[in-house]
Amino acid sequence: MNAPRSPCPISNALDLLGDRWTLLVVRDLFVGKRTYGEFQRSPEGIPTNILADRLKRLEKQGLIDRTPYQDRPIRYRYSLTEKGLALRPVLYAIAEWGLNWMPETEARMALLTDEELR
Amino acid sequence: MNAPRSPCPISNALDLLGDRWTLLVVRDLFVGKRTYGEFQRSPEGIPTNILADRLKRLEKQGLIDRTPYQDRPIRYRYSLTEKGLALRPVLYAIAEWGLNWMPETEARMALLTDEELR
Repeated sequence: MNAPRSPCPISNALDLLGDRWTLLVVRDLFVGKRTYGEFQRSPEGIPTNILADRLKRLEKQGLIDRTPYQDRPIRYRYSLTEKGLALRPVLYAIAEWGLNWMPETEARMALLTDEELR
Repeated sequence: MNAPRSPCPISNALDLLGDRWTLLVVRDLFVGKRTYGEFQRSPEGIPTNILADRLKRLEKQGLIDRTPYQDRPIRYRYSLTEKGLALRPVLYAIAEWGLNWMPETEARMALLTDEELR
């Protein structure tokens, strides 16, 4: 990331989260998806290069951890850290606004609890 | 906007709000800023073409209204609609996450109440 644009917490959070894809990957982690393939099969169809970039950034910023689960080729399982789990109220607020104000939307997935995700 | 990527309320909301600037303009409206010049003087230094584009999109999507306050050249004052005011919990959630998890941030502005903004 570049230098922060201001000390504003909203501005700083948006430097990290403010794009069309990052919070969708976080949403996927909250519904229990763990692997590259699972993220790619989400209905929005995230392009593979964007997915790789966002996972790298989220890990670098401490929102997710990765653990290898297979060698040759090496594959990783991703999970939310405490910093990532703390985004739950952000996702709920965005989902509620979407459900209330965008009539074509509907909730088809439920976020898992922190206990289920740890 | 293009066709929605999925019926997910988070995905749809991010189609509209998911970029580095849109929610900063919404934040500015929540702290009482009203004019093009006021938005531009915010510390993040929004580029003028991006500001014009985001105001147009927010108006088209029904989150803000504009009222002329000067002729030759015509100038507008912007304000949040009910749909825009309903983003308050989103801003609070993002601000709280930033304050808790990004140590270099600090809250220097307070959002006005809905009554003060109407």
